[in-house]
Amino acid sequence: MKRFFLIAIALMTMAIMTSAQDFFAQPVNSPEISKDGAVTFKVKAAKADTVRLIIDTRVDTLMKRQNNDTWSITLRDLEPDLYMYFFTIDGTKVLDPENAQVLRDVKNVMNTFVLDPNGDCPVAVHDVPHGEVRAIWYDSPTLGEKRRMMVYLPAGYEMSRQKYPVLYLLHGTGGDETVWLEQGHTAQILDNLIACGKAKPMIVVMPNGHTDTPAAPGMGPDNNEQPTFAHKQWMEGTFEQSFNDIVNWVDNHYRTKAAKRYRAIAGLSMGGYHSLYISANQPDDFGYVGLFSPAITRMDQGKSKIYDDLEAKLVNQFKQRPKLYWMGIGKDDFLYKDNAKFRELMDKNRLRYTYHESTAGHEWANWRDYLVIFTQLLFK
Amino acid sequence: MKRFFLIAIALMTMAIMTSAQDFFAQPVNSPEISKDGAVTFKVKAAKADTVRLIIDTRVDTLMKRQNNDTWSITLRDLEPDLYMYFFTIDGTKVLDPENAQVLRDVKNVMNTFVLDPNGDCPVAVHDVPHGEVRAIWYDSPTLGEKRRMMVYLPAGYEMSRQKYPVLYLLHGTGGDETVWLEQGHTAQILDNLIACGKAKPMIVVMPNGHTDTPAAPGMGPDNNEQPTFAHKQWMEGTFEQSFNDIVNWVDNHYRTKAAKRYRAIAGLSMGGYHSLYISANQPDDFGYVGLFSPAITRMDQGKSKIYDDLEAKLVNQFKQRPKLYWMGIGKDDFLYKDNAKFRELMDKNRLRYTYHESTAGHEWANWRDYLVIFTQLLFK
Repeated sequence: MKRFFLIAIALMTMAIMTSAQDFFAQPVNSPEISKDGAVTFKVKAAKADTVRLIIDTRVDTLMKRQNNDTWSITLRDLEPDLYMYFFTIDGTKVLDPENAQVLRDVKNVMNTFVLDPNGDCPVAVHDVPHGEVRAIWYDSPTLGEKRRMMVYLPAGYEMSRQKYPVLYLLHGTGGDETVWLEQGHTAQILDNLIACGKAKPMIVVMPNGHTDTPAAPGMGPDNNEQPTFAHKQWMEGTFEQSFNDIVNWVDNHYRTKAAKRYRAIAGLSMGGYHSLYISANQPDDFGYVGLFSPAITRMDQGKSKIYDDLEAKLVNQFKQRPKLYWMGIGKDDFLYKDNAKFRELMDKNRLRYTYHESTAGHEWANWRDYLVIFTQLLFK
Repeated sequence: MKRFFLIAIALMTMAIMTSAQDFFAQPVNSPEISKDGAVTFKVKAAKADTVRLIIDTRVDTLMKRQNNDTWSITLRDLEPDLYMYFFTIDGTKVLDPENAQVLRDVKNVMNTFVLDPNGDCPVAVHDVPHGEVRAIWYDSPTLGEKRRMMVYLPAGYEMSRQKYPVLYLLHGTGGDETVWLEQGHTAQILDNLIACGKAKPMIVVMPNGHTDTPAAPGMGPDNNEQPTFAHKQWMEGTFEQSFNDIVNWVDNHYRTKAAKRYRAIAGLSMGGYHSLYISANQPDDFGYVGLFSPAITRMDQGKSKIYDDLEAKLVNQFKQRPKLYWMGIGKDDFLYKDNAKFRELMDKNRLRYTYHESTAGHEWANWRDYLVIFTQLLFK
């Protein structure tokens, strides 16, 4: 027994040595989250002149030298949510060596933590029935290829014979089929809202909205592909035109309620733009539409018939009365003015929508919030 | 259109600024993989005195200052495989800012790339039919909780009515239910071997072998849990005793061939130890056993009846003729001597096994290799 422990300790030491950093000799606990929700970050950097903490778009602050080698800061005003952060040591980005939980925002890899001091944050994992997450490859006859997408099935799906409504949930320009699960915590949010009866059990389908790549970086045949904003095909109609391949595949493979009043489409930024045009072009297919900080600046332009005659299409779509047309945007979003212009067009035509204005900008804290709000309004 | 591009560029710039590092002003391409398999790493670090490249257990080397601010090194001898690496700049670990693909080895987050110069590396994604990966929560009546595990279903499973054999694939002390997919590239390996007929279509079940936690760090109710070697319950029999919960759940939920000759169990390190004892205690259940660098140093000790009388159990197990008993270990593995001792016990009793000795030690390059070899021998 002792011997085996010694070997285990040797193994541990090897693993720690692999990430050897001269000044990370004694580990510190970081982030340390107190019961009242204060979060303390610590990092060892004996020779540093300046150490900063950057938390996604929310915090960018100097840390203080606590003793010879450890820098520290405590934040007390953070809302319950998922956070992404990193340090800079004299300008060099370093991850927190004490936190192995990381996520990527487009090309930026960051540490992550969940702040849930009251045990009721919808993005946290709670002790509730958990749905199933599937990574699958579907056929797209329109694009002539297999493409990857993620599917959330609510707890109980596997053993029931019930049919379920479906939410199609689309990502932004910098995302892929994984991002609504990873930064969006969609599985956690749905698990929690369904468990307490606030949302109906539903299937959530998360496809990849970039038609120039079949899968997230690393999951497709270009194994070393890097995430990028600069796609060869970008908001030029191909995704929207091939979208029925996804709906057909889902209706063929899962026990869905395959009708307009049981089908929702929503997306963030580019995904909001996709949701706008797919639902406007297919007014019989989606009873619920969610535009989260939608990238609708191109509404007056178009190089595909998908984008032609938007106003007439919207008027026609609303004649057939969607159950819900929901829009959310932050006051500081760089797309705020364009969204206001779009609402003017809607108002001019007396098209009835639900509008949610939040603080902050074009960021995940808002999109997780919008998902929490939107999914509670679906299929009721 | 122009305007939208400007906004997109603004967005890109914001994203890059978020990871702003003074000396990463102009991006470099890293890693750059040439057609002949040479790999060039570059990193900007104008003020640095020493920059190193560390590739998992395989490379630890100085990089050379190429010009004022860029450090570089080219490696020409790397075998086709998955690699994990990071840089140190004057002793500080930094990830490659040009590579957003990362994986974690226990607590060490590293960049990753796949080297596949000939287009035939089994760990790479190829243009073949892809299986499905599911993250599910199963019931463990023995442990009185829901636990998370990953399931690979071969291409075609969903739409066929066929029944499939099952491989139970177990991780080591530092791992969890995700590690055989992430560092192990199990889905890619199975996709490739099944596509070319080298392996039979099979279901692969990857549970979490630590009974003191229901899920991988971040996926369980302790949202900010860190990966660790120091588990409260560790190789004390609980996992082995509760293993039938997993087999029962799988046989109840999937179209399995629920018989010994269609059931394999294999694992690395601690998972090899688990496989050894589960199969020895349940000689009627597993026709195929794979011990990958198994942690069998405790074979002479035991604090659970699971571990008692191993020799007699093995003799009994082999009377019932397993189809395959496979062992693999590297020459430099710290467990090499203990494995040799175990083989002596097997030989003394004339128990027939297949032995594969590789180069190198207790590491993923070997375990991916062993999986490639072992899965081709199954269910034939």
